Amino acid sequence: MSLIVQKYGGSSVGNVTRIKRVAKKIVAKKREGNQLVVVVSAMADTTDDLVSLAEEITQRPSERELDMLLATGEQVSVSLLAMAIHQEGEKAVSFTGPQVGIITDPFHTKARILDINTDRIREVLRRGNIVIVAGFQGKTEGGEITTFGRGGSDLTAVALAKALQAKVCEIYTDVDGIYTADPRICPSARKLDQVSYDEILELASMGAQVMHSRSIEVGKKFNVPIVVKHSVRNGKGTLITKENRKMEEVVVSGVALNQNEAKVTIFKVPDKPGVAAKIFKRIADAHINVDMIIQNKTETKSTDISFTVAKSALHRSLDVVRKAAREVGAQHVSCDQNIAKVSVVGVGMRSHSGVASKMFGALAKNRINIEMISTSEIKISCVVGGNRGKAAVRAIHKEFGLGK
Amino acid sequence: MSLIVQKYGGSSVGNVTRIKRVAKKIVAKKREGNQLVVVVSAMADTTDDLVSLAEEITQRPSERELDMLLATGEQVSVSLLAMAIHQEGEKAVSFTGPQVGIITDPFHTKARILDINTDRIREVLRRGNIVIVAGFQGKTEGGEITTFGRGGSDLTAVALAKALQAKVCEIYTDVDGIYTADPRICPSARKLDQVSYDEILELASMGAQVMHSRSIEVGKKFNVPIVVKHSVRNGKGTLITKENRKMEEVVVSGVALNQNEAKVTIFKVPDKPGVAAKIFKRIADAHINVDMIIQNKTETKSTDISFTVAKSALHRSLDVVRKAAREVGAQHVSCDQNIAKVSVVGVGMRSHSGVASKMFGALAKNRINIEMISTSEIKISCVVGGNRGKAAVRAIHKEFGLGK
Repeated sequence: MSLIVQKYGGSSVGNVTRIKRVAKKIVAKKREGNQLVVVVSAMADTTDDLVSLAEEITQRPSERELDMLLATGEQVSVSLLAMAIHQEGEKAVSFTGPQVGIITDPFHTKARILDINTDRIREVLRRGNIVIVAGFQGKTEGGEITTFGRGGSDLTAVALAKALQAKVCEIYTDVDGIYTADPRICPSARKLDQVSYDEILELASMGAQVMHSRSIEVGKKFNVPIVVKHSVRNGKGTLITKENRKMEEVVVSGVALNQNEAKVTIFKVPDKPGVAAKIFKRIADAHINVDMIIQNKTETKSTDISFTVAKSALHRSLDVVRKAAREVGAQHVSCDQNIAKVSVVGVGMRSHSGVASKMFGALAKNRINIEMISTSEIKISCVVGGNRGKAAVRAIHKEFGLGK
Repeated sequence: MSLIVQKYGGSSVGNVTRIKRVAKKIVAKKREGNQLVVVVSAMADTTDDLVSLAEEITQRPSERELDMLLATGEQVSVSLLAMAIHQEGEKAVSFTGPQVGIITDPFHTKARILDINTDRIREVLRRGNIVIVAGFQGKTEGGEITTFGRGGSDLTAVALAKALQAKVCEIYTDVDGIYTADPRICPSARKLDQVSYDEILELASMGAQVMHSRSIEVGKKFNVPIVVKHSVRNGKGTLITKENRKMEEVVVSGVALNQNEAKVTIFKVPDKPGVAAKIFKRIADAHINVDMIIQNKTETKSTDISFTVAKSALHRSLDVVRKAAREVGAQHVSCDQNIAKVSVVGVGMRSHSGVASKMFGALAKNRINIEMISTSEIKISCVVGGNRGKAAVRAIHKEFGLGK
């Protein structure tokens, strides 16, 4: 008998009809002879509705009270799902995160899991129940309710799979799995049967939002096999696992596009030690996340520095950067919101040369100008003009032969 | 510094505007130099909406899962109220029933409070906070979430007032207090400044639904002073307390009307020992609550037995009673849904004679026929024709001089 952890997102349990459908799926899996622990998110829109209520009361709700409020969303869906499973004739017991012993640090709205006591779950499983656990939440040692922030239910699922030594953690979502590129942009995109934690981390950080990076990091750290599957359609999905030899034969696993960033350039920054440090400390102090940073010294006395930030943080960034630029004696600051970042990812890159030149060649052939380049061990990213992003994805996807 | 427990019902926190209004009221009370523990119900309609969701899934939801589901309603309102108090510039911390140490028996949907550990509340109060507690809920020793059934938030408030030895338990509602009669029926009805636990228990059981009997019973048992007040309008409300000499000077405190009962009569029941017992055992086994029972033997060999039940239980009762009547050899069973029960209540009755004859006289003067009579130490109830109930209330109210 295998122990399987499943996770269903908010749209999979978005209404009573969907909850009933998910219940049937869970019961079928149980009757194949598995033990099941099922993690559930709040019903679609519930969390947003609760946040709106809080914002009607105050623009800056207490994070502790926000956690009290938001944790109710998952508690509603787990109890309804348990009832729907009973209706299908199987035994099921629902639990909140705090009830099931998910212990976190005390940082409300962004808590991290410290420990999971699995005694209660194991006891209830032993008595033949399907266990339903509210995702996204836990409690501190002192009994305060905490939530995990974005992607929190995935985190609950992966952490439970680790704690229970589950055979696999199945993440049910509204896509069939991980693709070589976004099929809406690149019709020839192919579903991957397998992908490594590192690759999916790079893809996730670049806009391929199937799973939040935090959960994948936990999966990687504890080597939890994760399968991403469609919650309605049948199919094998994509297995996220550690690298294996077979993966390395594939040079590039996927192409990702991120159109949510803007570029900021500081011109004629005096070329003295500590200047860049001063600028980026200002930015960090303002809690702005910077993605790519490029400095290219072309003159003797000064240099231009460019970086990218989320478009939503652009205005805040410009205020900070203009002040910092004046302090260090730079000439002026400009920005460009019309950019796109295209990235290729693949663990095979480590042992294969020529990936960068092949990527640049594909862009050149299609007369797509490269504005910035940044590389990591298993990723190469290029910033191109905003209106050329999709064409760049298609050109690169084709060049590396990733299609069906 | 006095410790006060307040309770606000679902309509008092029915939307964001009302929550803000309640927050201001609480903050004002705190700034008068009081320590405050505030019990809150779910926002109006929330509980009904959750029950509907459950019923869309199954007609017979598991009571454990129903408790998981319903407990979220109060958790939402306590967190929102805490935020609204913060917005008013005071410190507040919200808790669920389980968090705050309200320990119950394991009977889901109708749990009884076994114990309250007040350590957490006292600690948080000591640090200058207003404490907000979700009404209607607790947990078992094993950590299962339980709810208390109807009137559950009042019960939380009264039990907390007892456990914390509060100066008073204030129940905020949509009426100004307890009246000598329903003002909608009897325009001259007067608000009572004070009433005894026993009187309000009799009034509550007869349809004057200001508070559920369970909470009053707990208040009586532990002598908790309870004040019923309007949640918006200012006023002293009505103090519910143990009897005192002053009360006894008042013979009758109020007149109540219950139009939700029906009368069942079993004709020509053989007059043998054990026959009534057999019939009412059948009814009890079917979990049907009987209110008044009248047996009046007029013939030698048989007797007629009448009793009243809630109209909602009438059909179920008739099935059971018809079967029982055949078993004991009674002649036939009839029912009458068109009845009203009028009652006068007052601790002063104990020491004053003539209350019954005065009541019957008032009815006779108004040509209202009495169908059934039942008395307790501090109450006299008469069943009259359904269309005469309101006139009966007005006649009795006037006869006893209860008006303004």
